[in-house]
Amino acid sequence: MDYHKPDQQTIQVLRNIANRLRINCIKATTTAGNGHPTSCCSVAEIMSVLFFHTMRYRPEDPRHYNNDRFLLSKGHAAPALYSMWVETGFLKENEMFSLCHADSSHESHHTMHKQHFVEVAHGFLGQGLGVACGMAYTGKYFDKSSYRVFCLMGDGEMSEGSVWEAMSFASYYQLDNLVAILDINRLGQSDTSPLQHHVDKYYKRFEAFGWHAIIVDGHSVEELCKALSQPRHQPTAIIAKTIKGKGIPGDLPAEDKQGWHAKPLPKDMAEMVAKDLQSRIMNSSKHLYPSAPTEDSPPVSLRNIRMPSAPSYKAGEKISTRKAYGMALAKLGRYYERVVALDGDTNNLTYSEIFKNEHPNRFVECYIAQQNMVSVAVGCAARDRNLVFASTLASFFTRTHDQLRMAAMSESNVKLCGSHCGLSNGEEGPSLMALEDLAMFRALPSSTIFYPSDGVSTEKATDLAATTKGLCYIRTSRHDCSIIYNSNEDFHVGQAKVVYQSKDDQVTVVAAGMMIHEALAAAEHLKKERISIRIIDPFTIKPLDYKPSSITGKGTHFGEGGLGEALSSVMVNEQGYNLHCLAVSHVPRSGKPHELLKIYGIDRDAIVQAVRKLMSGSTNAK
Amino acid sequence: MDYHKPDQQTIQVLRNIANRLRINCIKATTTAGNGHPTSCCSVAEIMSVLFFHTMRYRPEDPRHYNNDRFLLSKGHAAPALYSMWVETGFLKENEMFSLCHADSSHESHHTMHKQHFVEVAHGFLGQGLGVACGMAYTGKYFDKSSYRVFCLMGDGEMSEGSVWEAMSFASYYQLDNLVAILDINRLGQSDTSPLQHHVDKYYKRFEAFGWHAIIVDGHSVEELCKALSQPRHQPTAIIAKTIKGKGIPGDLPAEDKQGWHAKPLPKDMAEMVAKDLQSRIMNSSKHLYPSAPTEDSPPVSLRNIRMPSAPSYKAGEKISTRKAYGMALAKLGRYYERVVALDGDTNNLTYSEIFKNEHPNRFVECYIAQQNMVSVAVGCAARDRNLVFASTLASFFTRTHDQLRMAAMSESNVKLCGSHCGLSNGEEGPSLMALEDLAMFRALPSSTIFYPSDGVSTEKATDLAATTKGLCYIRTSRHDCSIIYNSNEDFHVGQAKVVYQSKDDQVTVVAAGMMIHEALAAAEHLKKERISIRIIDPFTIKPLDYKPSSITGKGTHFGEGGLGEALSSVMVNEQGYNLHCLAVSHVPRSGKPHELLKIYGIDRDAIVQAVRKLMSGSTNAK
Repeated sequence: MDYHKPDQQTIQVLRNIANRLRINCIKATTTAGNGHPTSCCSVAEIMSVLFFHTMRYRPEDPRHYNNDRFLLSKGHAAPALYSMWVETGFLKENEMFSLCHADSSHESHHTMHKQHFVEVAHGFLGQGLGVACGMAYTGKYFDKSSYRVFCLMGDGEMSEGSVWEAMSFASYYQLDNLVAILDINRLGQSDTSPLQHHVDKYYKRFEAFGWHAIIVDGHSVEELCKALSQPRHQPTAIIAKTIKGKGIPGDLPAEDKQGWHAKPLPKDMAEMVAKDLQSRIMNSSKHLYPSAPTEDSPPVSLRNIRMPSAPSYKAGEKISTRKAYGMALAKLGRYYERVVALDGDTNNLTYSEIFKNEHPNRFVECYIAQQNMVSVAVGCAARDRNLVFASTLASFFTRTHDQLRMAAMSESNVKLCGSHCGLSNGEEGPSLMALEDLAMFRALPSSTIFYPSDGVSTEKATDLAATTKGLCYIRTSRHDCSIIYNSNEDFHVGQAKVVYQSKDDQVTVVAAGMMIHEALAAAEHLKKERISIRIIDPFTIKPLDYKPSSITGKGTHFGEGGLGEALSSVMVNEQGYNLHCLAVSHVPRSGKPHELLKIYGIDRDAIVQAVRKLMSGSTNAK
Repeated sequence: MDYHKPDQQTIQVLRNIANRLRINCIKATTTAGNGHPTSCCSVAEIMSVLFFHTMRYRPEDPRHYNNDRFLLSKGHAAPALYSMWVETGFLKENEMFSLCHADSSHESHHTMHKQHFVEVAHGFLGQGLGVACGMAYTGKYFDKSSYRVFCLMGDGEMSEGSVWEAMSFASYYQLDNLVAILDINRLGQSDTSPLQHHVDKYYKRFEAFGWHAIIVDGHSVEELCKALSQPRHQPTAIIAKTIKGKGIPGDLPAEDKQGWHAKPLPKDMAEMVAKDLQSRIMNSSKHLYPSAPTEDSPPVSLRNIRMPSAPSYKAGEKISTRKAYGMALAKLGRYYERVVALDGDTNNLTYSEIFKNEHPNRFVECYIAQQNMVSVAVGCAARDRNLVFASTLASFFTRTHDQLRMAAMSESNVKLCGSHCGLSNGEEGPSLMALEDLAMFRALPSSTIFYPSDGVSTEKATDLAATTKGLCYIRTSRHDCSIIYNSNEDFHVGQAKVVYQSKDDQVTVVAAGMMIHEALAAAEHLKKERISIRIIDPFTIKPLDYKPSSITGKGTHFGEGGLGEALSSVMVNEQGYNLHCLAVSHVPRSGKPHELLKIYGIDRDAIVQAVRKLMSGSTNAK
């Protein structure tokens, strides 16, 4: 790519835009009494050059799929982003000023709420680059298009490990369409950042991680224009040495000073600074417009991605739900080319390898970096470019709690599958058993949780996840179990199934996943004692189907945060029932799953005993 | 330090130990039908040299505080560790062979269970180095002693960001007593690791992160002995190029081959390999013993660390619970020199800065790397060397869920404080509001959760956390609130307080933290309507005090996973009560806390309305 040095007029206009950004951010945060004006001032020239010299996009359609992408990973500089969209004309100046008020559509740390120019919710440091990786991967390998992805990061967040997961990913996949711009302004919340202004140290780290690194003066419009125009064969890191609070005149104490993080300027100071900045804005007849994007991305529709045929399992056949997931995903991928799968070096455990083998170009290996895998998934799913399924062991998702939380807040449409749940992974010891995943996923806003119990319901769960809006989680088990549903059984989100019943059931057992099979064995045993139980499979743990009419007395598995607790919260005000929870209440030990089920009191015998106890209890109560 | 090359006899004995390790690990995993023998074989020489040439420790007392520390971050090589303790005589050979059985004290991924030679539970990749950093920091700065800390890592886990957080920490604090040994065996679970055998790339990354890096042949006893004896002024990384399954003869398919991760050898193959390895063990009259440690660490007792005096708050005084935490911690630190505090660039928000200012040498700044902060805390607390309090914003702990989980499994005694909980951080937007922290901490085994509501109860919570075994979490709020407790009030874990009552209470409100103050305002309002309510402050959310006798009808705040759900699960089988939960049910927006309390229906007016509704409901029921 040739580099044409911008003319003096262009440079002056870019400087003007930067200073108007400063004025707007200072005024808006002072008006709101909240926000991070000094963190906006350090990125003023970076934003100006990106939005009016480097990036190619349609200003009237910020989320168009042909546009270059921009991610503000240092979310606390949100007013700087708003200010750019004021400059493009997309946002009105007064809209920006309602910043940080509860009745506004803007936030101190921006979220998805109504903001078409925001890709994902930010504010949680160190997550932007992973999402940018997902977008860049999509641009290079799925869309095969020329759009680029720009990610603006703070120096504070460089301490977050997730950033280095993304760094590795980007160089491994040679994402030459990805540019990270680092705002090295030296100062954090309570102290200087650990590397302060040692840009050489950053340089060494980026180069070692396989990036092309360039050091610039982050307040030099010329240097930024040049660095951002360099040819690229690797991901590029622009290390911009900046001054926090830059532009706030030197006789006032906010430029490059500790103690001004997250602090709006007092009103009189803000006015004085705005006046001073205004005086530096030179009149110019020139007006800059963003360059138009190249229209080389294919249109994509993710609507109505549905499994074209019913599952083909036969009654009595045995298959693990994790394998059924892999097969279902590969089947879905056969009919829809925008279905993509990610995994974290566990594809032969989660069985996403079935998808990988069948659709190798749509499988992304994310290695043992689960946090980044979730962020990449969010990036791949952004702007509805792909329907993304990401899988690893259920227990490994604990590592990604924060990324999941931000994905949910971003209203991301990612689908996640966690295998080897609960005691089904007994042999590997407690650190690899997922016992907290249900509590974690349930607490995410707007999440849907599928916990299928056989091959048929797993395929149905995969099918439903594809069309269910928002973050979905499918929980699968390690070992083979029998098919219990007919292939034509109709499944719905939030609709439980009665899998075993008679006319005179005395106790209801609510169980899910592999526990259904324990409950069925218990039912057969109890039948001999002339005790009839009803077995309910909730299918989705969230939303949880609860119909008192189908319930006659209770016992179920799992304790705090899990199914038992979910049931408690819907049943707490129902009179006349007893709920007995069978749950793993201690840190479990290693062992064969059937041994562990026995030890921790959640196997078929434990169910039998619990039912007997409930029966005698209810007799006493009469 | 002078390097004396070991004599030939020593080298042969070290090789013998390595091959015996291989035999033991292969046999034990084949017997158990589970485990990772190939991952043990690649570290055989490393383990042998560490345990019988490099490390200085008392073999009869593995956790003695003067010993060098060893952390097996690649926890799936646990049998290799057991084998070393067989060599030292601490463990009997037959004990090792019960490996992976549920009735054994050993685990496929080792945990704390009964194992005196295990520092922390492993198996979750990428966490060992952070814990090692905490131990090395303690050795250098708190104990001021000569013991060293060795951490053995796999190449797969180098993809985890948490490793690079620890890398930064170690060089920033010049932990020259820390040695990381990297087992670069090229092969992961489903694929090769991303950098394969490119040891030069690892070298560049470690050097860039400020470490002294040395590349060695990981199967050369001589090279390992030499590298581990080099003088050090920085943390040292030994990059050991190894072969997965090394020692399993070449005509069998397990050496350096994909597909042998986590797979024990078939019985006949195991026997053949053991025989071959046995033939390589040369008789020697020499017997190696570990070197004795230098006895230069001070003895430490953490027993009976108790606040020496009652809080000195006056009725009506106002203070935020976060500030009360900082003051309480500084006070405790005044009397006990082994009380240390960690924070992640938020000390002026959590108020751990009060401790920092008073006890600067016992404050550890961990920067914006929350995962590593928790791991460092666990390391500092290991072997009962320090009573560690680590604080940051409550919402930031979400990032550390996995580290918290492993801390709980390790029975670590760390104390954590999360500030700015819930809507108290309204202005910063939803990403910085902690709404999931209660669900997350509740699901951790053996955790204790304090949620104090004023200055007095915060100081009491800090005091009780110091003496409560296991992981404790103290949840604090942003804004000032009135003192409601008398300084002499006696607090206990799991004991609720009735903060407002009369003889004829019609409804009970259970509230915690800042919601207590809303409930008190609601009570005053309802009094005018001649409605009497009882207000209960649980003080600890886990364990949750529940006495039906003190309760008359219900309403409380917070939804899934939070206090409301915790209450549901203890009240589900109690007849004759209604539970009404007031909770934040959507992703909240930014705003002033009092505005948000109103918008999301959890303020005093909402409580008043809920009480009225419950009253009319109970009237209808009669």
